[in-house]
Amino acid sequence: MKISRLNRVLDNLKNNGLTQTIISDPDSIFYLLGYSYDPGERMLALYLNDEGDIKLINNNMFPFPEMNGLNIHLFDDTDDYVSILASVVKAGKLGIDKFFRAQFLIPLMDKRSDVTVHLGSLAVDEARKLKDAEELELMRKASLVNDIAMSEGIAHIGDNLSEKEMGNLINKIYMANGGTTEVEQIICYGPNTAEPHHRSDTTRIKEGDVVLIDIFSYIDHYCCDMTRTVFYKDITAEEEKIYNIVLEAYYAGIDAVELDKPLREVDNATRAVITSAGFGDYFTHRTGHGIGIALHEPPDVSSVTNDIIEPGMVFSVEPGIYLPGRFGIRIEDLVAVTEDGIEVLNKYPKDIMVIE
Amino acid sequence: MKISRLNRVLDNLKNNGLTQTIISDPDSIFYLLGYSYDPGERMLALYLNDEGDIKLINNNMFPFPEMNGLNIHLFDDTDDYVSILASVVKAGKLGIDKFFRAQFLIPLMDKRSDVTVHLGSLAVDEARKLKDAEELELMRKASLVNDIAMSEGIAHIGDNLSEKEMGNLINKIYMANGGTTEVEQIICYGPNTAEPHHRSDTTRIKEGDVVLIDIFSYIDHYCCDMTRTVFYKDITAEEEKIYNIVLEAYYAGIDAVELDKPLREVDNATRAVITSAGFGDYFTHRTGHGIGIALHEPPDVSSVTNDIIEPGMVFSVEPGIYLPGRFGIRIEDLVAVTEDGIEVLNKYPKDIMVIE
Repeated sequence: MKISRLNRVLDNLKNNGLTQTIISDPDSIFYLLGYSYDPGERMLALYLNDEGDIKLINNNMFPFPEMNGLNIHLFDDTDDYVSILASVVKAGKLGIDKFFRAQFLIPLMDKRSDVTVHLGSLAVDEARKLKDAEELELMRKASLVNDIAMSEGIAHIGDNLSEKEMGNLINKIYMANGGTTEVEQIICYGPNTAEPHHRSDTTRIKEGDVVLIDIFSYIDHYCCDMTRTVFYKDITAEEEKIYNIVLEAYYAGIDAVELDKPLREVDNATRAVITSAGFGDYFTHRTGHGIGIALHEPPDVSSVTNDIIEPGMVFSVEPGIYLPGRFGIRIEDLVAVTEDGIEVLNKYPKDIMVIE
Repeated sequence: MKISRLNRVLDNLKNNGLTQTIISDPDSIFYLLGYSYDPGERMLALYLNDEGDIKLINNNMFPFPEMNGLNIHLFDDTDDYVSILASVVKAGKLGIDKFFRAQFLIPLMDKRSDVTVHLGSLAVDEARKLKDAEELELMRKASLVNDIAMSEGIAHIGDNLSEKEMGNLINKIYMANGGTTEVEQIICYGPNTAEPHHRSDTTRIKEGDVVLIDIFSYIDHYCCDMTRTVFYKDITAEEEKIYNIVLEAYYAGIDAVELDKPLREVDNATRAVITSAGFGDYFTHRTGHGIGIALHEPPDVSSVTNDIIEPGMVFSVEPGIYLPGRFGIRIEDLVAVTEDGIEVLNKYPKDIMVIE
């Protein structure tokens, strides 16, 4: 159990006017207990309150390690597990995990009309948003692996791999470096680069293609995430122009990462560069996302975020320009904020690269 | 749009006392509209009511095809999309998808105090539970691919592949046969077979190992799922005995699949065989699960299910015995119920097989 993290969550709960909460996000459970699993369609719920109760309602098919101070209530598939959960909750306000599903929440509300539900994830989100030293070290390590993966992936661009095959190759590199989950990588060739969320397919590379490589993995439970856009055999003047605008936007975003400043300034900074260059309509997503145990987690790096930049935050800066049906360019690095300033976790170069 | 399926859902809603519902499960949206995607942490919501309104609240980053009769409300990441959803809902009872997350449900309830929420998934679940002719054909095809994958996988048992590598090989076979998603296969060697939900790792096979292969894929959006347990080089008398008990339980389960009988009889039948052989405590899960667009969907094949066996149901029959730390044996096939009787979708043999 991670006592200091549990205490931070309890403090945050109190600041949000709550004394008890249900946590169901397996990543948050991992964060607090150091162990978790994905229960699929089944229920997994951690209950915390300000009297120090820490209870886990767990399906007995998924063994959970014993821990001092953790009270495990087991159920099996035929038990009425929502009643077990209802029986550990106290009357009054109850925090609910944002990922808790209606199939558990609605019957819980039906069973406990003396309870009012409130989104309680903020308490954990606020804690997870500020990485501790152990977490920062794991994120540095994960990004180092990503530099290796990007470098090896780019070295194989000439090998006539389909997008999917390139993704598999990247996954193998992660596996060889301690990555534990195979994921769907975003590898795009040619016009596919114009779709920010393109799903890699059987497209093969052609001379003159823009190549966008947006790759991530989980290394010791912590994520890396990086994007590079390179050019195969040839680059047009227009592609070079757009690349340089995106790169300038990226640096403007990085420069805007300053302790105690509003995080939305980072989005404003990248967007200002792209908009003043006349491509504002083609930068169709937020500038970045927090990252840690989950690929996407708070803080959100967008124009509507209210966060102030604090030590411990780790997020992506990833401006892009997408010309529909033609090509897209995105450049992404992870940035960690520390007491001493900011640290760009990815070291792989961002110069224009034409692969021969 | 699948009009007859939409009408069945609206009928089911009415039978459940509801006139409107929110559907957020991407599989249910695919079932009704013939198109869907996984929105990750973002909201995707289909709203239906008995006046024929069909509205989709969709993030504009994920293009959704235009359809006659479908009203698409777009939002972007910085919009207050829960307010958009709240604005299309009518006062009164509102059905909610079981997978709808608290992060959307709680603010929706806060914005619309004139609405009471009720689990509404039953309407879609009841429809999806009874496959139509098009779906049955897709499930037959998916299971045929699974027979091929099992056969090819078992042919490679002697190749010194790790569990994970065997899973990758199986995934490649699926891909070559139209499978579209790579998934984590359950491949277990030796004592790992004793864990019903073992995650394949780098374990390599040893002489005398029990080998459990539980594999699935999505072929044209419909699932297959099959388990076989075989023996590498050698089988002990105890393993043979347990195998035969599980096989007998399997056949007892299949024999209990009779039109208009309670589905729980299938679970009772497999469990009776295993219990009377003295291994009831080691059969730690339900007998099976419904399957279709999702790997696990209604009906549940357990001792507490209230379903009656009807034409169109497709579910697994998969009894198992797990001796902790030693070995486990499971045999699983999919069964389709039709007007004419029952159809076992998997044809791969179940005789005791010792691989040389």
